[in-house]
Amino acid sequence: MFNKVLIANRGEIAVRIVRACHELGVRAVVAYSEADKYSLAVRLADEAVCIGPAASARSYLNPSALISAALMTGCEAIHPGYGFLSENPYFAEICAEYKLKFIGPDANAIRMMGDKALGRKTMRDAGVPTVPGSRGELRTLEEAVETAHQIGYPVLLKPSGGGGGRGMRVAQNEADLIKAYPTSKAEAEAAFGNSALLMEKYLPQVRHVEIQVLADQYGHAIHLGERDCSSQRRHQKIVEEAPSPAVNPDLRARMGEAALKGVRAINYVNAGTMEFLLDPDGNFYFIEMNTRIQVEHPVTEMVTGIDLVKWQLRIAAGEPLTIRQSDVVMRGHAIEARINAEDPDRDFMPSGGEIEYYLPPGGPGVRVDSHLYAGYSPPGYYDSLLAKLIVWGADRNEALARLERALREFVITGIYTTIPFTLAMLEDPPFREGRISTRYVPDLVQRIKESKLE
Amino acid sequence: MFNKVLIANRGEIAVRIVRACHELGVRAVVAYSEADKYSLAVRLADEAVCIGPAASARSYLNPSALISAALMTGCEAIHPGYGFLSENPYFAEICAEYKLKFIGPDANAIRMMGDKALGRKTMRDAGVPTVPGSRGELRTLEEAVETAHQIGYPVLLKPSGGGGGRGMRVAQNEADLIKAYPTSKAEAEAAFGNSALLMEKYLPQVRHVEIQVLADQYGHAIHLGERDCSSQRRHQKIVEEAPSPAVNPDLRARMGEAALKGVRAINYVNAGTMEFLLDPDGNFYFIEMNTRIQVEHPVTEMVTGIDLVKWQLRIAAGEPLTIRQSDVVMRGHAIEARINAEDPDRDFMPSGGEIEYYLPPGGPGVRVDSHLYAGYSPPGYYDSLLAKLIVWGADRNEALARLERALREFVITGIYTTIPFTLAMLEDPPFREGRISTRYVPDLVQRIKESKLE
Repeated sequence: MFNKVLIANRGEIAVRIVRACHELGVRAVVAYSEADKYSLAVRLADEAVCIGPAASARSYLNPSALISAALMTGCEAIHPGYGFLSENPYFAEICAEYKLKFIGPDANAIRMMGDKALGRKTMRDAGVPTVPGSRGELRTLEEAVETAHQIGYPVLLKPSGGGGGRGMRVAQNEADLIKAYPTSKAEAEAAFGNSALLMEKYLPQVRHVEIQVLADQYGHAIHLGERDCSSQRRHQKIVEEAPSPAVNPDLRARMGEAALKGVRAINYVNAGTMEFLLDPDGNFYFIEMNTRIQVEHPVTEMVTGIDLVKWQLRIAAGEPLTIRQSDVVMRGHAIEARINAEDPDRDFMPSGGEIEYYLPPGGPGVRVDSHLYAGYSPPGYYDSLLAKLIVWGADRNEALARLERALREFVITGIYTTIPFTLAMLEDPPFREGRISTRYVPDLVQRIKESKLE
Repeated sequence: MFNKVLIANRGEIAVRIVRACHELGVRAVVAYSEADKYSLAVRLADEAVCIGPAASARSYLNPSALISAALMTGCEAIHPGYGFLSENPYFAEICAEYKLKFIGPDANAIRMMGDKALGRKTMRDAGVPTVPGSRGELRTLEEAVETAHQIGYPVLLKPSGGGGGRGMRVAQNEADLIKAYPTSKAEAEAAFGNSALLMEKYLPQVRHVEIQVLADQYGHAIHLGERDCSSQRRHQKIVEEAPSPAVNPDLRARMGEAALKGVRAINYVNAGTMEFLLDPDGNFYFIEMNTRIQVEHPVTEMVTGIDLVKWQLRIAAGEPLTIRQSDVVMRGHAIEARINAEDPDRDFMPSGGEIEYYLPPGGPGVRVDSHLYAGYSPPGYYDSLLAKLIVWGADRNEALARLERALREFVITGIYTTIPFTLAMLEDPPFREGRISTRYVPDLVQRIKESKLE
C-alpha cells in the first residue's frame, strides 16, 4: 500500500478519500485552492498544500500545480476524485511521467471512454447494447437531419467533448432539430472547447441505471450490481438508490455481464461505472462509462458492504481484487439524497452564506458524507453539493421511511438547501412507488410550481 | 401499530426510540424532567411532557407521573428504554392497569429475571448451563469440601446475605478452602449479620458474551447472535462488538439454542438479552437476563440489519415476528465505543459543562447515537453517556481501523470525554487481537497509570 497519497479534489469527495486513506493507514495530503483553505478535508488531512487561486483552471484543473504538490510532499499516488481532472487522460499521463500512480484506469481507457462516440462504438463492437445513434460526430446539419431520419424522432443532440448536460438538446422533429443544432454546437464549444456533436435516439420513458465495476490489473473483474439514478434535474442526479426498483435478479445478472464484457474488452483497471438507459420493457442501452468514482457510490457500498474508495487505492497499489463475483451479495436497500446549496422555492437558485448551525442526523442506517461544519462558508466557486445523506433499510420501504426521518432531523441553517424538495419527492406517489423515469423530476418541479400558483 | 407512544426515558436512548417511532409513522411523546427541558429527544419529539424535577425518584422513576403523562397525551403504549423503570415489574403492572401497553415483557418475566438467584435457578431447571455451584447455603465445612470436589477447583466462596466483594474468597485447592472457610464465614457475619456461604466455580479468565433474542406473543422466538462485552470497568461496559472474536458458528448456534431454551421456558415476549460467561475452553454459563433493550444493541443491528427497537414496538403492538431464524445472517463486524463525560486522565472523574462545538464523524460504516448538540449542557443528574459511536466493517480489522478513524474525527469540545482512553485501547495489542477477558480494562487502566508515573 502507498505511504502517502495526494487528494486532487475538494468538498465531500476529498473528505471521503481522506477517510479511506486513514482506514488503510495511508497519509492523506489534500491539495486545496485559496478558497478552500478552511475546508473540512484540509482539517482532516495529515498535510495540506495550497495549489493556487480559487478559479479551478488555476488550481484543481492545473496539472503542474498538482504534480508539484505531490512531489513536494513525497506522495506516491494521486486520487483525482470526481470531476476536475479525474477523467483527463493527459493528467493521467503526466502523473505516469513523474512516477506518480494515478488512482484510476490508464490514460488510454480514460481517453477512449471520454470520447463518448468512440466509447459507444467500442462497447457496441464488444457486444454491449447501445442506443441507436450517429456513427460518430455529426459533420453538418444535413448529416444530422439524415441521421435523425434513419433512427427516428425524437432524437438527442449531445456534445462529444463532455457531459453533465451542457449542450444537450432534444428534437421532436426536423424543425426542432434545425433550430437546436447551432445552439447545441455553440454551447458545446463554450463548455468544452469542442463543438462536435453526437446524435442518438431519444428514449422518453427510460430509467438511468448504472452498473458499478471493479477490476484489478491481473484481469479479474466483478460488478457490484446497479444504481438507479432516474431522478435527475438538468442531468444532475438528485436521488440515487440500490437496487433499482425496476431490476430483478435476472436483469441484474444480464446487465452486470454486459458491463463486464465492456470492461474486459478494454482491459479496464480500477473502479468504473457503465451507465445504461433502461426502457420499460427491460431493454438496456449503454450510454457511457465513467472512469472514476461517482458521487452516488455510497449506495453500492451500503448494500454490498464493499468500500469502493479503499478498493480504488488497493487496486492502484497493485493489490489483487480478492472479491469474487459470488461474494457480492446485495443486502437491503440504500438511497442517497444529495443536499445542495440551492433554494428549491426559487427555481433552485444557488445559495451562499455561512453555515450557522449544523447537526447531521444519526441513528440506525444513516450515513452522512459531507464537508460541512458550523461556521463554514462553502465557497461559491464550485459545485453546490453540501452533503449526501445515505440511508440503508432492510427493504425499500424501511429505507424510504428512514430517509424521511433523517431529512427531517437534518439541521443546516444559514443557507438554503434542497432538503424541502427531497421531502416533497418522498411524499409523491410515483417516487414512493418506484415508478419513475428520467422525466420525473422536471415534472415534479412543474407540479410543485403550479400547486403554489393556485 | 400504535398511533402514539410515550418515551419514559432520556438521553441517547430516548432519541433512539423517537427515531424508531418516526420510521414507523408513530407519534413520539417524550416525558422529560425539568433538567432535560432542552434535550435533543424533546426537540425531536412530536410532543413533550414535563414529568417533574431533575431527581430521578421524582420524574423518571415516578410511575404515576409517567402514567399521567401518557394518559394526558393520549398515548397507547410506553417505551421504558433501559435503566429507570425498564426492569420494574410493578411499573409494568401499573401500565397494564391503565390499559397502556408496556413495551417489554410481562411483569412476571421481569420479576423472575430481576431476582438473580431465581433467574439462575429457572434457567438451570430449563437446561441452560449456569455457573456450577452449591445447591444452596453450605451447612458445614465438610459439605463445602464435598461440593468443591464435585465442581472442581478453583472455587469461590461468597456470602449469601450480601454482595460487593466482602467475605468473598477464592480457593485453589482443599487446603486453601479449609483455611478460607472460617475466615469467609466470619467476614460474612461481620458484614451482613449472616454467616451463610454459597459456593460456585471460580472462572478466572472469562469473557462476557450475551445473546440477543426477539420473541413474539405467538410463541415464535429467534436469536440474533452474540455481542462480546468483555471490556468493562467497574461492571460498566466500555466497548462492545459483534460477532465475538471468541465465538465460532458452532458455538454461536449452541449459545443461541441455549438462550432460546430459556426464552421458551418462561414464555418470554419482546426483546431480551441472555448474558453468559464464556471460558477459554468454550464453556458458557448463564449469569442473568436483561428484560429490556440494551445500550449495546446497535452492534447487533449493524451486523444483522434488523432494527431491534422497531421490532420491540411491533411485537408490543401484537404483530407477529416475521423473521425466521434462517433469515438472521451476521454480516461483517460491528464495534460500539461508549463515549462518556469522564476524564480518563483523572481516574474517570465525571466531567460537566456546555458542549461548545460538536461535529460527529461520518462516512462509510459509521453510526452515531447521541443526544448531543452544540450549546447543550448535559445535566449532571444522570449517567455520563454522551454518545455511542458504532462502526461496521467487512471484517474485524476494517471495523477497528474505522473506529480509530472515526474517533479521531469526533469533535466534542467544552467537556472531557473518554475518547482518548478508547483510542489507547485500540492501540493495545490484547484488544486489537481480540484476546481479552473481563479483567482486561482494569489492567489497562493500571498500565496507563504506571506508564505515566515513569
